[in-house]
Amino acid sequence: MNQRVAIGVDFGGTNIKVALVDRDGKILGKRATPSDPQRGSDTVIGEMAALASTLLTESGLTSGDVVGAGLGSPGPLDLKAGTIIRSTNLPGWQNVAIRRELSDRLGLRVYLANDANAAALGEFWAGAGRSGGDLVMLTLGTGVGGGVVHRGRLVEGHFDNAAELGHMIVVVDGLPCGCGQHGCLEQYASAAAVARRVQAAIGDGEESVLASQVTAGEPITSQHVAEAAKSGDALSLRIWEDACVHLAIACVNIQHVLNPKYIVLGGGMAQAGAFLLDRVVKHFKDRTWSLCDDAPEIVQAQLGYDAGVIGAAALAWTNQDVHR
Amino acid sequence: MNQRVAIGVDFGGTNIKVALVDRDGKILGKRATPSDPQRGSDTVIGEMAALASTLLTESGLTSGDVVGAGLGSPGPLDLKAGTIIRSTNLPGWQNVAIRRELSDRLGLRVYLANDANAAALGEFWAGAGRSGGDLVMLTLGTGVGGGVVHRGRLVEGHFDNAAELGHMIVVVDGLPCGCGQHGCLEQYASAAAVARRVQAAIGDGEESVLASQVTAGEPITSQHVAEAAKSGDALSLRIWEDACVHLAIACVNIQHVLNPKYIVLGGGMAQAGAFLLDRVVKHFKDRTWSLCDDAPEIVQAQLGYDAGVIGAAALAWTNQDVHR
Repeated sequence: MNQRVAIGVDFGGTNIKVALVDRDGKILGKRATPSDPQRGSDTVIGEMAALASTLLTESGLTSGDVVGAGLGSPGPLDLKAGTIIRSTNLPGWQNVAIRRELSDRLGLRVYLANDANAAALGEFWAGAGRSGGDLVMLTLGTGVGGGVVHRGRLVEGHFDNAAELGHMIVVVDGLPCGCGQHGCLEQYASAAAVARRVQAAIGDGEESVLASQVTAGEPITSQHVAEAAKSGDALSLRIWEDACVHLAIACVNIQHVLNPKYIVLGGGMAQAGAFLLDRVVKHFKDRTWSLCDDAPEIVQAQLGYDAGVIGAAALAWTNQDVHR
Repeated sequence: MNQRVAIGVDFGGTNIKVALVDRDGKILGKRATPSDPQRGSDTVIGEMAALASTLLTESGLTSGDVVGAGLGSPGPLDLKAGTIIRSTNLPGWQNVAIRRELSDRLGLRVYLANDANAAALGEFWAGAGRSGGDLVMLTLGTGVGGGVVHRGRLVEGHFDNAAELGHMIVVVDGLPCGCGQHGCLEQYASAAAVARRVQAAIGDGEESVLASQVTAGEPITSQHVAEAAKSGDALSLRIWEDACVHLAIACVNIQHVLNPKYIVLGGGMAQAGAFLLDRVVKHFKDRTWSLCDDAPEIVQAQLGYDAGVIGAAALAWTNQDVHR
């Protein structure tokens, strides 16, 4: 048992990140490269393996030092088969046997999970939830990703598709979502939705300090909205508060379904820190029940953009891929 | 290993049911008696033990034939301590060490769970979900109770309070609930809520075939509403459909959080059979996503009012009470 590292691979639509992670969740080496998924799965998976190999060489390690590799991937996935069924972020990828193909190239066991689930496991294992206890994570980015850790393991669901928390319906007959539903959380509380809603309101003629930027055709982000809201911009503050209210309602629902110890907020929007967290906590307290004191702690993610690779490595360290 | 039965105790605000249940989930003997909780916990727990003892004698069994006893109880419970913290249905009961007290009287291990959770385990073990796979149950009665079975075990949550599914918020700033929240599922989709909403609308002057009954001061039930809706009563049909829409939204949210194989509908309102189920399934299909085919089967409970005792016995048969 002299294995000292696990390989974590965080496969996103934009970048591939590969890291060597020790038993304590510490990153010993990390590399990133653009995904360019249109190159085809063969080339992309080959590059994942090449990055891992480079990292091992740089660290003076061999595959004998590696406990295994974990891979966080966009989905939907078939965890039993170890395949990417398809993904809106990976045009042309259909039923790619990514677990086997990466495993063959690395000569190692590969553990597979949905990317947002892997990030949640990372926060559980080495971040905001490392003291233990059930944890639910919401990743507020382009969409709202989710992950559920229960008794130390990811909840995958019967159809391998648990924790799609951005698609909880929070508003009956609400805003349309690309998924075909109406009123999904991610239409109110993703980083992209917040920016989009401010942009749309400005397009409709509402006043805002961000109006000139929008009129000039420059894209705005949730950070711009947060900064404008802090400086007193009424439109930005209204959309930001609305996001926080809907996140709070999602937290109440998570409280009553899973009753976890922690709800962790991560992703681009969580970079606003207390300006997000304090508001979500306030609205949660205003809206949760008074029957008994079983409220999860709502906390900020601690691993930032490394949650994915650390969580992927944690899959290997904790040997968790029920279908492996 | 000649143990042939488990004792199941379903402790409700109205009745106590005790049954002997074999390894296949079959009831070998059953007794019920009014709870009368105001008699105090000593008397009530004594009666549970006496009923169990009578059943064993009648079946020619001794405690050596019994694998253990399970108890489904109203809560909130402290599962670690094995206590009823308090309950709106059990006036005067405070921090009652029910697990130890029943165990002492029976001379057997006692496994404790929330009553709605026990019912869900019953349906998983011997009812609608007995073929296996994660299961979520909604019990539509006075309130809406819930239970989540994941990988064969009840999800209890960090604060022992998971699966309070009736208190998922389905309408932002919706109807007030006794729990202190607004827009809880159980304000729209419990048997009591459906009856109450029809009654209120009649009080406000709306026409309905149920008006004379209400005016005469006779109570109406969800069955009355279902029958009136079937016969074309517009008010009853509107309230019934509204309940089905909100149940469907709850099912979509359960799909995306837990992604179970089954969602089981039980309790008084589920006695309407297809008149409930078909509508919930229809609204679910209209409102769930089209991204991938991971929809749980929404099915009717199969054990009726025996789900509680059978599930309580299942706690003992499957040795599940993590804190025992």
